[in-house]
Amino acid sequence: MPPKKGKEPIAEVYDSVTDGLKALYRTKIRPVEEQFKFGEFYSPIMNDGDFDAKPMVLLVGQYSVGKTSFIRYLLGRDFPGQHIGPEPTTDRFIAVMHGTDDKTTPGNALAVSPNMPFRGLEMFGNGFLSKFQGAQLDVPLLHHVTLIDTPGILAGEKQRIGRSYDFTQVCEWFASRCDIVLLLFDAHKLDISDEFQRAIEALKGHDDKIRVVLNKADQVDAQKLVRIYGALMWSLGKVIKTPECVRVYIGSFWDEPLKCNEWSRQLLQKEMADLLNDLKNVPKNAAIRKVNELVKRVRLCKAHVYVIGHLKKEMPSMFGKDKAQTKLLSNLEEHFLKVHRTHGLPVGDFPDVARFRGVMDGHDLAKFPKLDQKMMDNMETVLTKDIPKLMSMFPQEGSANSSSGAVS
Amino acid sequence: MPPKKGKEPIAEVYDSVTDGLKALYRTKIRPVEEQFKFGEFYSPIMNDGDFDAKPMVLLVGQYSVGKTSFIRYLLGRDFPGQHIGPEPTTDRFIAVMHGTDDKTTPGNALAVSPNMPFRGLEMFGNGFLSKFQGAQLDVPLLHHVTLIDTPGILAGEKQRIGRSYDFTQVCEWFASRCDIVLLLFDAHKLDISDEFQRAIEALKGHDDKIRVVLNKADQVDAQKLVRIYGALMWSLGKVIKTPECVRVYIGSFWDEPLKCNEWSRQLLQKEMADLLNDLKNVPKNAAIRKVNELVKRVRLCKAHVYVIGHLKKEMPSMFGKDKAQTKLLSNLEEHFLKVHRTHGLPVGDFPDVARFRGVMDGHDLAKFPKLDQKMMDNMETVLTKDIPKLMSMFPQEGSANSSSGAVS
Ligand SMILES: Nc1ncnc2c1ncn2[C@@H]1O[C@H](COP(=O)(O)OP(=O)(O)OP(=O)(O)O)[C@@H](O)[C@H]1O
Ligand SMILES: Nc1ncnc2c1ncn2[C@@H]1O[C@H](COP(=O)(O)OP(=O)(O)OP(=O)(O)O)[C@@H](O)[C@H]1O
Ligand SMILES: [Mg+2]
Ligand SMILES: [Mg+2]
Repeated sequence: MPPKKGKEPIAEVYDSVTDGLKALYRTKIRPVEEQFKFGEFYSPIMNDGDFDAKPMVLLVGQYSVGKTSFIRYLLGRDFPGQHIGPEPTTDRFIAVMHGTDDKTTPGNALAVSPNMPFRGLEMFGNGFLSKFQGAQLDVPLLHHVTLIDTPGILAGEKQRIGRSYDFTQVCEWFASRCDIVLLLFDAHKLDISDEFQRAIEALKGHDDKIRVVLNKADQVDAQKLVRIYGALMWSLGKVIKTPECVRVYIGSFWDEPLKCNEWSRQLLQKEMADLLNDLKNVPKNAAIRKVNELVKRVRLCKAHVYVIGHLKKEMPSMFGKDKAQTKLLSNLEEHFLKVHRTHGLPVGDFPDVARFRGVMDGHDLAKFPKLDQKMMDNMETVLTKDIPKLMSMFPQEGSANSSSGAVS
Repeated sequence: MPPKKGKEPIAEVYDSVTDGLKALYRTKIRPVEEQFKFGEFYSPIMNDGDFDAKPMVLLVGQYSVGKTSFIRYLLGRDFPGQHIGPEPTTDRFIAVMHGTDDKTTPGNALAVSPNMPFRGLEMFGNGFLSKFQGAQLDVPLLHHVTLIDTPGILAGEKQRIGRSYDFTQVCEWFASRCDIVLLLFDAHKLDISDEFQRAIEALKGHDDKIRVVLNKADQVDAQKLVRIYGALMWSLGKVIKTPECVRVYIGSFWDEPLKCNEWSRQLLQKEMADLLNDLKNVPKNAAIRKVNELVKRVRLCKAHVYVIGHLKKEMPSMFGKDKAQTKLLSNLEEHFLKVHRTHGLPVGDFPDVARFRGVMDGHDLAKFPKLDQKMMDNMETVLTKDIPKLMSMFPQEGSANSSSGAVS
């Protein structure tokens, strides 16, 4: 697995899509959002950093299950600050990211970097930031994803005494920003400590991101392996409340060759290939998600502007504006309905009546700009032309898999 | 798998143990129980039928998972009234039992047979009894166990409309009397219908009896099989509340040879051997359970008699008996403590104070016989000599497995 130099074509596609979205938003959407105070009614105005954030994969598990070795396996080489060993070794969260040279960055510095997605971590204070670190290196995979290595979870007291921050809360923070959460288990000692269980429970709401790895599964006799796998599913099914079961990949993810009989080898190889393939699709899925989120945002913005435009038109031009606005706001449902009928906008694109009324109460309708049909047409073009054009850049289903190793 | 004629040595051992227990109880325990009204304070006086009941194995599952074929596989031949086929076929509960000749017996007749353990089924009325049947045949396995075939569980409405009795309640009745409940699943179509889920939930309290069979598991590609097995464990873990996971046997239990690759074959063969071995141990475990239950009963009886004896001694011989009994009963804790100290009886052997007081209120202490030390010594001998002698008849650990096919 020799590391490859330079950027791969597939990475460039996703980067171009992101750049395209960024440009569309900056030139055609953001000005409208600013004029019509979309940020106050919905979610804050976005900036480039919000588009740039790489998809992230978080690795969580008891100590020594092979989290760090797993990352090393994906990278095909050591990363700066890496510690692998039989005792609890990794003692901090490490964000493994792309960089042209090998280097590590302390957590405090990462958390204040404007172009990094780690600003929010400041809230965990120095107790956490001193146990957080960035590792940069030049491996193609990292063009697509950032990998988060974590300290192994210990059982019970040892855990709590040793840590100067709330492990579960930090996990939750990362999980909500990640695309995939990989839970690792060791086939030789399958224990789900209370602490680990709490960490899994903290992932509630991100169930769809969870994937499980049953690691070190070679060298376990087949019948025993099946038993262990079953016990794992049994326990996970009790902790994760979804009816659909989580995907478990059975394998041995490090750089030693598989040590097992032929049947197990075949199974493990298929499973490991499946996992690598799923990880390969993370950037694509993340890009698609970004596109979807922008489409949703533009549609909300459209409805928002039409609503404001309509309300302005209903206002008397000279006197009694205050009273008129109050009256308008008390009949909001009716006005929404009119806008819905006039412009054929889906009901789902309209804001929550109470919330809209609340925010609008603090504003003067008169101060909003008039509805400018050209601006609206521009937004429409984003939805009907610009974004579909970006979408067409995605490799077709199937060809993505055949492209040279997104995961090296 | 040719059926064997005659009774096997191992069956005779268990039968002798049962006969021994029966005789001990009848001659040395039951007379004491009767004199001291043990049946009213604890559980009813037992008769021979209570000892004779064969261990039972109940088979439950969606239709067509192979329940009837499984029984046929264990027996090595067809049984009277057997129906095997791709459509819902078995339309009734069938108790497959030993008999010298092939014959079937209608449910109504079974439920009134004094020497059969099915009397309680009368409470489900004719709606059920017309869908209940006995099948007798001469197969050695049936010396040890009675197998209960059941109609397949259908999904939703079809089920409820077709049935003239409450399937879940009947299952619960059998489960509480069985030694093993086998839940069968078909590896090709793993569905747990609501009805089946209700049936599993009705087994609460009998979790330790549940074993699961993932049937028809040959001819399924290994990776897919692992996936299916995982999904099964996931779902079962949600329905069965115990933290320890249930044992699932992966196999294909009918008389066709396994159709699968070498690795799967090895796994399935081990699994199937495990299941047969566990079934082999059912009679042994059932006999041990009977012994344990009798020991427990004798100890309770001993404490009961000592308590009554003590209370009688405390009674004034002539006047004021009523008042004295009331006073004694209000101080029961104290008197229990005295008996506990005097005779060194474990606290756990004493009855519940409130319950004892309640039953005693309806009796006159004076009418109970005096404590007869010879009778007590007799009971002691049962515990210290007679039962250990019976226990020594059990084949030693290990040799049980090597004995010729308890399961043919
Ligand atoms: N697939 C594997 N098969 C067998 N041994 C492995 C495998 N992966 C890692 N190991 C070994 O397991 C030990 C722990 O590995 P590693 O340090 O990667 O685990 P970790 O989960 O990162 O531990 P910690 O939580 O302490 O950071 C090391 O000795 C490593 O060589
Ligand atoms: N191990 C097996 N592998 C493949 N097919 C099987 C296996 N066991 C049974 N079958 C087939 O599956 C079908 C259903 O079998 P069977 O009648 O024994 O199931 P059942 O669970 O008793 O069904 P029902 O609930 O309708 O009574 C039959 O066609 C039978 O030949
Ligand atoms: Mg580590
Ligand atoms: Mg059947």
